[in-house]
Amino acid sequence: MAIGKGALPEFVPVPGVKIGVASAGIKVAGRKDLVVFEFAEGATTAGVFTQNQFCAAPVTVAKNHLAQCSPRYLLINTGNANAGTGAQGIDDALACCAQVAATANVAKAAVLPFSTGVIGQPLPVDKLLFAIPACIENLTDNQWASAAEGIMTTDTRPKGATRKVVINGQVLSLSGISKGAGMICPNMATMLAFVATDAKISAQALDGMLSRAATQSFNRITVDGDTSTNDACIFTATGKTGNELVAGTSAFAEFERVFTELMLELAQAIVKDAEGVTKFVEVTVAQSNSSETALKVAYAIGHSPLVKTALFASDPNWGRILAVVGRAGIDDLQIDKTNIYLGDVCIVSGGAVSPDYTEERGQQAMLGDSLVIRIELGLGEISESIWTTDLSHDYVTINAEYRT
Amino acid sequence: MAIGKGALPEFVPVPGVKIGVASAGIKVAGRKDLVVFEFAEGATTAGVFTQNQFCAAPVTVAKNHLAQCSPRYLLINTGNANAGTGAQGIDDALACCAQVAATANVAKAAVLPFSTGVIGQPLPVDKLLFAIPACIENLTDNQWASAAEGIMTTDTRPKGATRKVVINGQVLSLSGISKGAGMICPNMATMLAFVATDAKISAQALDGMLSRAATQSFNRITVDGDTSTNDACIFTATGKTGNELVAGTSAFAEFERVFTELMLELAQAIVKDAEGVTKFVEVTVAQSNSSETALKVAYAIGHSPLVKTALFASDPNWGRILAVVGRAGIDDLQIDKTNIYLGDVCIVSGGAVSPDYTEERGQQAMLGDSLVIRIELGLGEISESIWTTDLSHDYVTINAEYRT
Repeated sequence: MAIGKGALPEFVPVPGVKIGVASAGIKVAGRKDLVVFEFAEGATTAGVFTQNQFCAAPVTVAKNHLAQCSPRYLLINTGNANAGTGAQGIDDALACCAQVAATANVAKAAVLPFSTGVIGQPLPVDKLLFAIPACIENLTDNQWASAAEGIMTTDTRPKGATRKVVINGQVLSLSGISKGAGMICPNMATMLAFVATDAKISAQALDGMLSRAATQSFNRITVDGDTSTNDACIFTATGKTGNELVAGTSAFAEFERVFTELMLELAQAIVKDAEGVTKFVEVTVAQSNSSETALKVAYAIGHSPLVKTALFASDPNWGRILAVVGRAGIDDLQIDKTNIYLGDVCIVSGGAVSPDYTEERGQQAMLGDSLVIRIELGLGEISESIWTTDLSHDYVTINAEYRT
Repeated sequence: MAIGKGALPEFVPVPGVKIGVASAGIKVAGRKDLVVFEFAEGATTAGVFTQNQFCAAPVTVAKNHLAQCSPRYLLINTGNANAGTGAQGIDDALACCAQVAATANVAKAAVLPFSTGVIGQPLPVDKLLFAIPACIENLTDNQWASAAEGIMTTDTRPKGATRKVVINGQVLSLSGISKGAGMICPNMATMLAFVATDAKISAQALDGMLSRAATQSFNRITVDGDTSTNDACIFTATGKTGNELVAGTSAFAEFERVFTELMLELAQAIVKDAEGVTKFVEVTVAQSNSSETALKVAYAIGHSPLVKTALFASDPNWGRILAVVGRAGIDDLQIDKTNIYLGDVCIVSGGAVSPDYTEERGQQAMLGDSLVIRIELGLGEISESIWTTDLSHDYVTINAEYRT
């Protein structure tokens, strides 16, 4: 069960990017579970990675390699996260990079590894080493749709977004894919995402753009409050088309706006396909005196099992929302200035039930598979939004049965 | 479904305490839903209350009255929390106190009100006013068992604990009851609890003792991370027996030890009867360099839906525990010093899977309805424990259907 249709778009090809997909039989024989990205020489790449201190071996290796040189290859496997695997995990990730490097004749540091799947089991390196040459042989233009399938784990559908944007008369391409359905909580993101453009952007400017966009997209979603060990989001600019986009110019700003929009689409696609999801929920906290306060309240709501089960039941149990606002730890909360809306319906006004609220109106606002919960704090003018889900029987079933 | 037998103990009577129970028909006709405690003149009383800023009207009134004088009466209703009810809620709570005061001929401020139940609906004051005189007429010695039933909401069974303790040759009584099953997260507690003794203890010393004991008991349990609007824990010393217990003496310390043990029993009874519980879980974080760090890790585990669903499945999915430790936000975490145990089985040693760990041993450790998860951080010598539950289908069912 997922929200909306969520069909993959027709991807805009990105000159300078080739993708190969193969089946290494890591967890299930015959399943696409190995993806290789190849970037043209001269491409710049930026990455943001999980803040989980038990980060997986491939995250450690990818960060290390990214610091050494511009990557020419990304190697992504599903079915095994290579996390909690100690020194052996690092060796295994490096062995896979070496295999890509040998096959493609580049330096080992020009390869970034990514893994996703079960934590704590040794990576079946032999299977990967065997499948990598075939994957590289398959490298072709515009294999985004196939790659979107190749990086799935508990996802029920592949996720992608694409844009053609005209900047200063130049037609630029932006395509990207993401994966993730559980263990989703911002910091960095909690998933994998790979985005590329043919625009020419310096590595430093790309870093800034990715970091800002991640904050507004992947770092604003939560399914279950659990930040994974393997998150990574990679953005590559191949530089094949047009003049350089220089930070500070209006062209750069316009491109960043479109990129951020695409990142948000990829991030929201994860929430809409979250484990057991029946409701896609935006939580907006407005009239705050700081972003931090707004996000504290928003995440407290997004992580509350009592609110999430009420959402699952389509029950306008606003008392639970009010109780969460009260326990969110906001020192300067002013109860008599707090308003709460479900969609357009004002349920709490000045800290008590709104005079014109009726159970029927609340019920009406809960229908449908998307919902906005809006909190007004009456403390200032800052607003923040996050996107989350309900907590359903299917969430429990999926996570109680994931390994069996 | 609840853990263990959980039968009520044979309560030790507490001289100086009388209890009356009645049915006001607040939510369900004929159900015991109103309890009055009467304390002898000269009794001292201490209270700790919810830190939720949207605290319920009765909490505001009880704190205010407690600051004015030593309470003679407690009035507790279930079926309606009188929370999120604005100024009307305060008026309603005061009207109930006034009715007790008029019937019993004491000052209104000598009555503390407590409510628990659905948030956001007006208190049916008329029903309470009508039932209060009958409740006061019923005041009798040793009605603890009946009171334990009278304060239940979604609890599946009444909760109580009792002790006879000999201090300096004097036989002292301690009896108490608690309620709570959902919206349970420490800060203060997240429930109601009423404990009384016939010992003589000054109001100030009683405050200190209650505050310390609550920290080690009710403030160490979590079911769903949601702190309620109505929590309160009240401790009364009637002074009917023996000489005064003076803070700083060994007699006082011994009494406090027994009291704290009784408080922990009442707190754990709530976790064992938590909504949908199938596992009673102690999370101990040892070898920490501070209590704060230990509790941060412990609560991150206790609140993780992924860990809780794995517990429900009796799945030794230790990767999820490791991932939570990694994202708990501990700056000085040293992964290669971190050990994790399920019961006696070491699953993670030095940050990676323990060499002698097998899936069979992990599975074995998950059998039974109680479990200890132990994390060793290798950073110091401080240890903290909390008590929590799994996340089951029944939790979702109960909370998705609570109001319907």
